[in-house]
Amino acid sequence: MIIVLRPEAEQRDSDEILSLIEKAGLKPLYMPGVERVVIGAIGDERILKKFHIESHPMVEKVEEILSPYKLVSRDMKKTDTVVPFGKDGIGGNRFIVIAGPCAVESAAQMKKAGAAVKAAGAAGIRGGAYKPRSSPYSFQGMGLDGLKILKDVSLETGLPVVTEIMDQVEAEEAMPYVDAFQVGARNMQNFRLLTELGQLNKTVILKRGMSATITELLLAAEYILNEGNPNVVLCERGIRTFETSTRNTLDLSAVPNIKKHSHLPVIVDPSHGTGVRDYVAPMAFAAAACGADGIMIEVHPCPQEAESDGQQSLNLTQFEDFMKKLKPFALAAGKTM
Amino acid sequence: MIIVLRPEAEQRDSDEILSLIEKAGLKPLYMPGVERVVIGAIGDERILKKFHIESHPMVEKVEEILSPYKLVSRDMKKTDTVVPFGKDGIGGNRFIVIAGPCAVESAAQMKKAGAAVKAAGAAGIRGGAYKPRSSPYSFQGMGLDGLKILKDVSLETGLPVVTEIMDQVEAEEAMPYVDAFQVGARNMQNFRLLTELGQLNKTVILKRGMSATITELLLAAEYILNEGNPNVVLCERGIRTFETSTRNTLDLSAVPNIKKHSHLPVIVDPSHGTGVRDYVAPMAFAAAACGADGIMIEVHPCPQEAESDGQQSLNLTQFEDFMKKLKPFALAAGKTM
Amino acid sequence: MIIVLRPEAEQRDSDEILSLIEKAGLKPLYMPGVERVVIGAIGDERILKKFHIESHPMVEKVEEILSPYKLVSRDMKKTDTVVPFGKDGIGGNRFIVIAGPCAVESAAQMKKAGAAVKAAGAAGIRGGAYKPRSSPYSFQGMGLDGLKILKDVSLETGLPVVTEIMDQVEAEEAMPYVDAFQVGARNMQNFRLLTELGQLNKTVILKRGMSATITELLLAAEYILNEGNPNVVLCERGIRTFETSTRNTLDLSAVPNIKKHSHLPVIVDPSHGTGVRDYVAPMAFAAAACGADGIMIEVHPCPQEAESDGQQSLNLTQFEDFMKKLKPFALAAGKTM
Amino acid sequence: MIIVLRPEAEQRDSDEILSLIEKAGLKPLYMPGVERVVIGAIGDERILKKFHIESHPMVEKVEEILSPYKLVSRDMKKTDTVVPFGKDGIGGNRFIVIAGPCAVESAAQMKKAGAAVKAAGAAGIRGGAYKPRSSPYSFQGMGLDGLKILKDVSLETGLPVVTEIMDQVEAEEAMPYVDAFQVGARNMQNFRLLTELGQLNKTVILKRGMSATITELLLAAEYILNEGNPNVVLCERGIRTFETSTRNTLDLSAVPNIKKHSHLPVIVDPSHGTGVRDYVAPMAFAAAACGADGIMIEVHPCPQEAESDGQQSLNLTQFEDFMKKLKPFALAAGKTM
Repeated sequence: MIIVLRPEAEQRDSDEILSLIEKAGLKPLYMPGVERVVIGAIGDERILKKFHIESHPMVEKVEEILSPYKLVSRDMKKTDTVVPFGKDGIGGNRFIVIAGPCAVESAAQMKKAGAAVKAAGAAGIRGGAYKPRSSPYSFQGMGLDGLKILKDVSLETGLPVVTEIMDQVEAEEAMPYVDAFQVGARNMQNFRLLTELGQLNKTVILKRGMSATITELLLAAEYILNEGNPNVVLCERGIRTFETSTRNTLDLSAVPNIKKHSHLPVIVDPSHGTGVRDYVAPMAFAAAACGADGIMIEVHPCPQEAESDGQQSLNLTQFEDFMKKLKPFALAAGKTM
Repeated sequence: MIIVLRPEAEQRDSDEILSLIEKAGLKPLYMPGVERVVIGAIGDERILKKFHIESHPMVEKVEEILSPYKLVSRDMKKTDTVVPFGKDGIGGNRFIVIAGPCAVESAAQMKKAGAAVKAAGAAGIRGGAYKPRSSPYSFQGMGLDGLKILKDVSLETGLPVVTEIMDQVEAEEAMPYVDAFQVGARNMQNFRLLTELGQLNKTVILKRGMSATITELLLAAEYILNEGNPNVVLCERGIRTFETSTRNTLDLSAVPNIKKHSHLPVIVDPSHGTGVRDYVAPMAFAAAACGADGIMIEVHPCPQEAESDGQQSLNLTQFEDFMKKLKPFALAAGKTM
Repeated sequence: MIIVLRPEAEQRDSDEILSLIEKAGLKPLYMPGVERVVIGAIGDERILKKFHIESHPMVEKVEEILSPYKLVSRDMKKTDTVVPFGKDGIGGNRFIVIAGPCAVESAAQMKKAGAAVKAAGAAGIRGGAYKPRSSPYSFQGMGLDGLKILKDVSLETGLPVVTEIMDQVEAEEAMPYVDAFQVGARNMQNFRLLTELGQLNKTVILKRGMSATITELLLAAEYILNEGNPNVVLCERGIRTFETSTRNTLDLSAVPNIKKHSHLPVIVDPSHGTGVRDYVAPMAFAAAACGADGIMIEVHPCPQEAESDGQQSLNLTQFEDFMKKLKPFALAAGKTM
Repeated sequence: MIIVLRPEAEQRDSDEILSLIEKAGLKPLYMPGVERVVIGAIGDERILKKFHIESHPMVEKVEEILSPYKLVSRDMKKTDTVVPFGKDGIGGNRFIVIAGPCAVESAAQMKKAGAAVKAAGAAGIRGGAYKPRSSPYSFQGMGLDGLKILKDVSLETGLPVVTEIMDQVEAEEAMPYVDAFQVGARNMQNFRLLTELGQLNKTVILKRGMSATITELLLAAEYILNEGNPNVVLCERGIRTFETSTRNTLDLSAVPNIKKHSHLPVIVDPSHGTGVRDYVAPMAFAAAACGADGIMIEVHPCPQEAESDGQQSLNLTQFEDFMKKLKPFALAAGKTM
């Protein structure tokens, strides 16, 4: 940890901080500069957290050297993690596609979607039973009935299913019906939910919050691992920027960025990431090219009748065509599909 | 609602959409332009939501004319709402200050803080018993013990208290101990929590999410009002931008912006809004000047010992001095204090 | 154009605006809604610009239907444009790589870089003679001497060269030495410079500003085409967001977005777009995958001795390896290389 | 300067960097940590710039301790600077208002505006003769004729005038006609222009770029001071964020932030900062409250006829009323007006 003092700090301020560092069992370093004093602390700086050095009135800023997360860190585990999902899991040298409608709307819709995405080569099915909606007047999902439909489709197709849950009650309700929980962007820092999911034995797909940094995403995953559940997949789904011609700005550099700092698998959601049907396929190809472990994509038998996100969904024919074009990019990136 | 078709749309696409609008009971308007067809729908466009016109493959974009919220809207209620909090409430022609530490750390700390902020003229006390923290390794709050301390301090000082809750369980636990619930920025779109708070009879201070637009903030409040609880105070606390020398960018234009669109009271949190002690007072003065109904501010008996946010807290002497300087700005804005 | 009036607007305000539209030769449409009046104007709305309807005190907002640009628009020209650069140009079905150091530092450095990038398959060379630097204390470029070195390397290798110019004086000085001008992100809206470049007969690579929308980028290109120079290549190079672990956030959705709206070629700069050497190759692969016409990339014989941007430059061996891996992605995207 | 090495760095990498620091005449400090080595350099770190340590393949990141600017820094000059403008200047204990139309459109318009803003108590007049416009099809300004009108109005009213210039040619043309140059947000990093203005003997009002950090704004000012012109006023005018209901997000924390780091005066432009007429007055009051040295505001005799920015301009009656309400805020902030 590097501590920069304010220009008006006096010798006794330096002394106070140096002795705090020593007391914590770290090695202090005194560096008087031309304009300001800088103090270093050598050792495991996480121990220093409880001394709140940044709150000292004479401290200008504190720079941490170590990453604030541990269990999710590449420093901790050098090899890529493969997380359970269906027969082959997510991560490693496979590129997987999880496809399906934004929301479960009926058994007929899901069965049609499930059969089609399976035939086209998807490795998993998505569908929302509980829907987080900005407006209380929008469709809020089918709940338990939706979960049962998902389970039926999973059994029929043999494909694992993912669904979003927004609180502990939903997680418990959904537990027997699905193969993986999705934590949506709006809940990435719902720490109560993360803690609960850390105690369940189920794969979690954790989406990056709309304004979350990569470090914050990794810290959110750390909450889950820290409770004992190592099966977390990270998902880039676009961040909020000033650009308004897309719903979000898909930050594909998050893929190599996360891969560098963490051993967890990373997938990309090009549907929410752009919000525009025409850009979904190019961004999925790009995700495969930059090293992602898969994508999660919205496909609907009839997008113009979708209860939500129809404008960013592919129809079944478009999806079939898309899958054919996707494969060479995954292969060029050294993955199988 | 204004619907712009893609350049390649054909007559039958226009006809299909025009007939949808008619079927919904609205008046359709056909506007063929030089490059594209535009279609209007006159009447209460919220009815059209369920037809998902934006998902039609030949629709380029849909512009909504009416605001998507109703109950929180200034169109619905012209006069300013005063929300219950202590003896005078929040809103109307008073400017109120809610002050206290970020987290409840001990009875001694809270009693000292409570007595001091009361003496300096605060109208309410804040203190966190449950703490949302980016890292699982940071202090997570005292929980129920913290709530009891808050209640004691409230009884001693006669001031109402606010505390943050993050889920339904915490809301129920905190219900008998506090006068208002705070929904933090990370939970602004925790729709399960908002729905629950709409069913409780307690004032809610709803903070704007770090990347939430004003429209999204008003829709989040709409969730609470829609369930039957009209007592919502909105709180600007800074948004996330590219600027890194402050913790957030405090968007004070949110104050007149919300006042124009909604009848609900608006307060400002200059502590989280800047994250820098030196900027807290100037931003609080600015909040008073631009018409806010109050501020929520972090004050700690000993900031360098604070478990969290010490770097943005005023100490008790600084707070006393601050309150004296604040008053003329509130008066100039036509408020009493 | 769609004009939404304020709720307090009266009949005479509507009448005034309707008659303005008529006077301009467009067809007015009156749409009285439940809460507000909406007025439409059918025809070439650009004519209405001079009436400044948005400034009317009773106008709440104005929505434009047509894109504000014309010459760069895909509506104007359906086929992809190929812009002159070397023997094959930029655009169409080729994927090109322009490589070289951030700044020209010496003849030896440029010759070494030029020979190596040529050998590895690059289609053009980049190098800065004039450098825009945030600090007046940083290296500002070699100027005319740098241009002469670029010309020599171009003659030796047979590859065309690109260099950044920042004002008209530099454009005129550089005119005989280089094959294309680069307009940097900071100058994307330097309208004097754009106008000047529109009058010169030289290819322009126009980089997107750090906080420019796609519409603003296309309007900046429109300035150049409007003066008579049709040879503009657009370049995505990252936008500024809250994420600090990369220098910028590379917005690859800009590629299909621009391709949809404009006939001009689009290239990507993964070096400035990420600022981190380890992410340059993955982002270049992704750029090829999503349909870009090429990339511009920083390569330096000895990155740790580079006067600028060494931390994002590949060395010559890394570049050679990179080019081999890039090709399959370009081929999968249907391009030759 | 603090240098963090990558985990895979070896002893010889540390040695190489330590010896570089020593060679530069600074004192090196070796801090081997649990996961990575950290190296410190004590002394004037600006000397190290030329060694490009950040480009070393084994360097993970470099943290600078000193601010990168010198002449504009509060460390350099403790007292507030007063910059020449009219008889009293900008800065110190006065709060000044510069008002006028966005663009000079005619002698009649400017004379009317000039007389009115003078009568209401403004200390200066603004008006654009050269207009930077996103679209080449928008009004581009009256040029020299506009400058002559500005000079006439200045002589008539006795008030100094400000006008925007976009390049050296305009600066030279405008030199005899105006009292201060404005550098617009789009030109904040037009380094050629900044260098030129540093060589002229005229006050410069430098607006913050739409996506510029405070550090970058101060570095842009440093360009001007470094060339010999100390008369720079900084202007906060809103930054670009995700919020779309305002034209920009006015970052008022920039005022205390700049005051802390620099001795230069700071003014605020609430017109461009919000883009909405209704929010201009509240934001101007807030600017006065948080310690700004003045505001620059758009006032037009007939906003609905304005060639640009009419939707954010006050009319003459609104301005007169505004000035009366503004004064108490300036007084409460300890300024005279």
